[in-house]
Parts: sequence; C-alpha cells; structure tokens
Amino acid sequence: MLKLFISPGACAMASHAALEEAGAEYETQVVNLRAGEQKTPEFLAINPAGSTPALLTDEGPLTQNTAILTYVAQRFPDTGLAPVGDPYRFSRFVAFNAFLASSVHPSIGKVLFAGLEGEAREQALGIALSKYELLEDRLVEGPFVFGDAYTLADGYLAVFERWARQARLLDPARFPKLNAHLDAVQQRPAYRRMLEQEGLQPA
Amino acid sequence: MLKLFISPGACAMASHAALEEAGAEYETQVVNLRAGEQKTPEFLAINPAGSTPALLTDEGPLTQNTAILTYVAQRFPDTGLAPVGDPYRFSRFVAFNAFLASSVHPSIGKVLFAGLEGEAREQALGIALSKYELLEDRLVEGPFVFGDAYTLADGYLAVFERWARQARLLDPARFPKLNAHLDAVQQRPAYRRMLEQEGLQPA
Repeated sequence: MLKLFISPGACAMASHAALEEAGAEYETQVVNLRAGEQKTPEFLAINPAGSTPALLTDEGPLTQNTAILTYVAQRFPDTGLAPVGDPYRFSRFVAFNAFLASSVHPSIGKVLFAGLEGEAREQALGIALSKYELLEDRLVEGPFVFGDAYTLADGYLAVFERWARQARLLDPARFPKLNAHLDAVQQRPAYRRMLEQEGLQPA
Repeated sequence: MLKLFISPGACAMASHAALEEAGAEYETQVVNLRAGEQKTPEFLAINPAGSTPALLTDEGPLTQNTAILTYVAQRFPDTGLAPVGDPYRFSRFVAFNAFLASSVHPSIGKVLFAGLEGEAREQALGIALSKYELLEDRLVEGPFVFGDAYTLADGYLAVFERWARQARLLDPARFPKLNAHLDAVQQRPAYRRMLEQEGLQPA
C-alpha cells in the first residue's frame, strides 16, 4: 500500500490531492515540521533531503511533488489525470509542475515564511507577484491549467493559490482567472476530502 | 526540426547534452542573457518566463530542463537514456532532476551569481555545500546517478559539478564520487560535442 508523508497545509497537499483524485489506496503519515520530525533518522531514511512530500511505494520511496504527480499519473493512466502517452503534452504537464516547484514555491515561500520585513519583504513580494501575474496572464489557459480538462497540475497550482489568498495577495481584480481556478478546484470532491483529512478549510 | 535555445555554459547545457546523447536532429540558437535577449518579445513568445532552456518542437515550445529531459527520453525511448515505461523508476529520474532544479541550482546559483559578500556569502555557501554533500553521500549511487547506466540526469548533474569545480568548491577529498562522475561525463563523446558547440572546455 502507498504511504504518503505530509505536513498539513504544506505543498504536499498537491501529492495528497493527486492520490485522492486517482482513487488510490493509500495512507498518510503526518511529519511535524515545527517539531523537526523531518530530521529524524527514520524520516531521513525515506527522504535524505528531509522534506515533505515523500511517497513510500512497494518499490521504494519517491520525493518531489513533480515526480510524485508523474508517478500517480503513470500508475493510474486510465483516470485521465495527465496526458500520459503523449510525449509533448506530458512534458508540458511536467514543465508546469517544475515551474511551480522551482519558481512559484520559493518566491511565495520567501514572502510568507522567511520572516522578512520592510524593503526586503517588499522586494520579495514583487518577485512573487510577478510569478502569479505570469500564471494569470500567460501560463494558465483556463478554466484549468491546460484548458477544459482537470489534470494533477491543477491540484498543485491550487496550493499556491491558497497560500496567496490566505495572505490576501490574490486580488480578485488582478487575478480573476486564478481566483476562479482555486474556487473550481476546491469544489472538487477529491480536493475536499484531502482538505478534510489534513484538518483544513477551503480558502 | 527541434530548436533549442541556449545560453553557453548555463543550465541549458543539460538539455543540449540530452539532444546530443539521443542523436536527435536539432539546431541551437544562442540567447545572450547579458544583453537581455531573454526579454525580447520574440523570445517571450516562446518562453513567457524569459529563461533558457527552451525547446521549440513541431507541436510547440517546451521549457524547464526537467521537462525537456522527460521529452527527450520519451521521444527517443530506444536510446535507453531514462527508464521510460517503468513508472517508479521513471519518476525517480524525474525526482532527481526536480531536486537539481529546485534545490541545487538555486543554492549554487546564489553563491556564484548573486554578488553576495562576507557573512551572507558564507551562509549561502554552507547551504550550497550541504546540497552537494547530500548528492555525494546519499543521492548519487555511482558511478552514475542511478548506478552503472548513464541517464540524462547525469548530464544535468554535471552542469552543477562543473560550476562547483570551476569555483574550486568541489574538493576531491570531500567529493570523490562527484569528481569522478564529472570526469566520466566529460569523457563522453556526446558531452564533448555539446561543450564544443557551446565554445567550452572540460572543467
């Protein structure tokens, strides 16, 4: 059975939502980041980098949301949650997730979690907002990331839309597409089950 | 025909080496980052995020090394350059590339390109070295990333090994595995062709 290591409300929500969308049999284990549980020998044996998410499969562990979404899409190809079997479209799916991981996550994370103040925070905020503007104006087709069909990339994007909305950074006038996207994702039964399991409310 | 947008010596080397390894028919176009060519309307039409690499395919553009390596592996499956067709092993391949993109690249990039000095540089250096230690001690099986078989992840890793060696950060006593890895990659004919095309020498 699959076992997903999560930190409620953190970016592992993307992998958690993916397993729910796919109808996978799995269990979750909470890693309390504030208590430093990601640095215990037991967890480092699963993910030496000491971060969530990590997915324990029958074949071994797997880390990084981008990779876990690739795995879930390929393990459950009939669910249509990603264009597996089409190298170009599947790679665009990977590219979007990789952009979230390497560009959106660190920029909004710096604003929310780095304890910056004053000018340093303003500068970080400007960079983060430029990423959301890129998503709004160029990268998200709408209503979902790749148009009419929901993919696992949508559940990943929703993580950062949630964080931005909770911090009152997702101005509906500037970001109508992203706001509508988050609302649509949070109405999905699978996403709601994920939130409930993590003890969270829709943002 | 495939067209790869590169900046010589930058991380696009990973995608460039992948196309050489796969024996793909392609051409390259240099984007001069110092001259700001990544912000021209022509290039932003290909990659709105304004970064290299970008790969123009017959079906459209593709960005992010992690995704371009996924594409090359799936478009040229008979080359054995990644474990396509095995969801777990392929996803581990994606995970390794995603770790390079989201963790190794920004940490060594901060040391080399952010213009930090004094304590700020020391702090950034400590974080970067911890990533290389993780690669050396836990993540790279040796001689290649996933053992005896070269994959496209090896060409990506070599980018950051080159940067570290050029900055005299890849101490052979502390990083014997990574040094041997870089030497092995740089001896490959495909990697040498890539370097030559970018006007570079082995590091």
